Amino acid sequence: MRAEIISIGDELLIGQIINTNASWMAAELNKTGIRVSRVTAIGDNAEDINYALKTACEQNNIVLLTGGLGPTKDDKTKKILAEYFDSDMVFHEPTFEHIKTLFKARNFDLSALNRKQAEIPGKCMPLPNTNGTAPGMWFEKNGKVIVSMPGVPFEMQPMIKDEVIPRLQKKYKLPFIYHKTIMTHGLPESKLAERISNLENSLPEHIKLAYLPQPGIVRLRLSATGPDRKALEEEVNNYCRKFLKVIPELIFGYDDTTLEEVAGQLLKDKNLSISTAESCTGGYLAHLITSIPGSSGYYKGSVISYANEIKINELGVSPTDLETYGAVSRQVVEQMASGVRKKLDTDYSLSVSGIAGPDGGTDEKPVGTVWIALAGPEDVQSKLFHFGEHRQRNIRRSALAALDMLRLELDKTKKTC
Amino acid sequence: MRAEIISIGDELLIGQIINTNASWMAAELNKTGIRVSRVTAIGDNAEDINYALKTACEQNNIVLLTGGLGPTKDDKTKKILAEYFDSDMVFHEPTFEHIKTLFKARNFDLSALNRKQAEIPGKCMPLPNTNGTAPGMWFEKNGKVIVSMPGVPFEMQPMIKDEVIPRLQKKYKLPFIYHKTIMTHGLPESKLAERISNLENSLPEHIKLAYLPQPGIVRLRLSATGPDRKALEEEVNNYCRKFLKVIPELIFGYDDTTLEEVAGQLLKDKNLSISTAESCTGGYLAHLITSIPGSSGYYKGSVISYANEIKINELGVSPTDLETYGAVSRQVVEQMASGVRKKLDTDYSLSVSGIAGPDGGTDEKPVGTVWIALAGPEDVQSKLFHFGEHRQRNIRRSALAALDMLRLELDKTKKTC
Repeated sequence: MRAEIISIGDELLIGQIINTNASWMAAELNKTGIRVSRVTAIGDNAEDINYALKTACEQNNIVLLTGGLGPTKDDKTKKILAEYFDSDMVFHEPTFEHIKTLFKARNFDLSALNRKQAEIPGKCMPLPNTNGTAPGMWFEKNGKVIVSMPGVPFEMQPMIKDEVIPRLQKKYKLPFIYHKTIMTHGLPESKLAERISNLENSLPEHIKLAYLPQPGIVRLRLSATGPDRKALEEEVNNYCRKFLKVIPELIFGYDDTTLEEVAGQLLKDKNLSISTAESCTGGYLAHLITSIPGSSGYYKGSVISYANEIKINELGVSPTDLETYGAVSRQVVEQMASGVRKKLDTDYSLSVSGIAGPDGGTDEKPVGTVWIALAGPEDVQSKLFHFGEHRQRNIRRSALAALDMLRLELDKTKKTC
Repeated sequence: MRAEIISIGDELLIGQIINTNASWMAAELNKTGIRVSRVTAIGDNAEDINYALKTACEQNNIVLLTGGLGPTKDDKTKKILAEYFDSDMVFHEPTFEHIKTLFKARNFDLSALNRKQAEIPGKCMPLPNTNGTAPGMWFEKNGKVIVSMPGVPFEMQPMIKDEVIPRLQKKYKLPFIYHKTIMTHGLPESKLAERISNLENSLPEHIKLAYLPQPGIVRLRLSATGPDRKALEEEVNNYCRKFLKVIPELIFGYDDTTLEEVAGQLLKDKNLSISTAESCTGGYLAHLITSIPGSSGYYKGSVISYANEIKINELGVSPTDLETYGAVSRQVVEQMASGVRKKLDTDYSLSVSGIAGPDGGTDEKPVGTVWIALAGPEDVQSKLFHFGEHRQRNIRRSALAALDMLRLELDKTKKTC
């Protein structure tokens, strides 16, 4: 079952608005087993709307349009739809009654434009709009379904959920699609692909694997299609367990969880506290940790020691070691971690010291060189990383690597899936 | 000059990713006078890519593709492009050298997959990818330009700015459009619109004003179209000076500068240092300050006092005041600022204490209540803010408000434009 989404609106073509409607609709359709084959965004323009409608109908069973409905004069969609379906415009009394009720509730006066909103192509079945004036319009032609909806998200969303999807499910016998995303940290896409290539090649035809990389993180998405929902879920989860066997240390969670969520949950579950000492990440590690609601339950605070004197005065780093090994060294980063753990009296502490760039690199320690330490009740571990040349990405990757060190320490048992 | 953007990636069709690439590109093209007529998102699928490419080329002068390039096997775009342009694949030595250099810097081993990334259709002109391995590919056919780029935003963006747009400007004679963006902080869109309504109404037909709001910041973009570049620039700059007269305290800069840049530059120019003490912003203020290269020249560090005991022990906040007035109070936030300024020995210091949410609000101090203080050589100022209900936005708006307090303090003379 192929569907196309057509998003209408000039604002989509000048970059003023991001097309969140289309991604929301795609996610909803996908869950129902309808595959979106294409998303097309076009302007409020008769020629482009006509062309998009024609090609979409040629290639898909279902075409969903949003936008181009509303009281203002730049809206041409309804007229185009009437022509496309060779239909007259008719005045739809229940829609007008609905508009009148809405306006009364808001104490607005009706205008001639509002009366016009109750005019719809005679060949469509109107869909009620609980949150607005413009009704949805359901057309059928040559066994295909074409639905036009308003572009305002809170009008479109209930229409999709309550009207469109139930009707589509009824009309077509839909295949089932199950997605599961494996979240990994620690290897770039190409290295990860090598590690899992045997497993990837063993996947059956009806289970697809997609690599979705971000700086520091690669998401592996398994998508399975089949007739039996339960069997499919079980099969995919079985493969997840196989992935966990092949790359146990790389997998930190499933389905778009974040490292800061996972690490925070582990601290919470084990009733442990943490503090941080940051140099090159400059507060970004603390920011990730505190972006999680409830983080005040386990996070006490941080000393950001951007200047070396702060490392000495506030974290107790040895001036001699700073001199001898430099601020970006195992010695200094371990002393930072121990220092902040003691000072803020927490169970664990993370510290980061590196060269974020663009300046400050040397031959021996180029930009992207980062030391990270984790101090705990028993010991202090530290690790050297070589990231890239970009300041913001080095900062983000350093903070993620620090969170992952904490996760690996706290989560020494294997996760099930 | 019509352009189409084709975004390739299954993740766009299941709602996992919002198509921010397309809106960013549309905005960039728009600024250059290129009208985007359509944005098409399709999957990693030969048939759909081929069809999209064919129809896009029929209707547009310029076709920009993103995505479908990368080392893993779900990428088919290059092969399809080679076939579409009736071209063999050739091994491109400079691209391979670039990949080798990137991998060497990161201490990774090259795989066969990486070598394959250096294979490109012979008929294309490769565009350098400063931030990744996959090169861009510039094709010309029947007077039309087709460019394929990676889908990773930080690889695609510099490619568009540094390679694609300059080449398009050269190839086509584009009408001249001059944009200038006025950056404001301190008033929401509707209030700002009231303040500048007279000035807005006085703008001539060929100069348009667009409001581009973000949490905490409203950008005002003036776009002028005309034949004479110099006269246009002068006219727009004249209007900028008029805006500066009407809203002098709200304008912090021009053309997508940031508050952290402006505040940092002021500290640098005046040879002053700063430290921070953060509670509810949890490191985000420090992160903004240290996201600027060279910030180590004026930023010494921070004490993130998420827990009250850290406010007392590390920042010298009075336990009695904490008890009496609460952590979110003028008394505490001023003591935090004074405490960190003294402890880290800086000229200025900023402190933030508030309720970011979703929990922790009371009737008296609802979520979004934030106190910010600025301590300097002469005094301590503090200010109470009421933001909204969303944690991440409250964190960001608090940090921006803090930076703006610093900017206003340091920049007491009027800026010219």
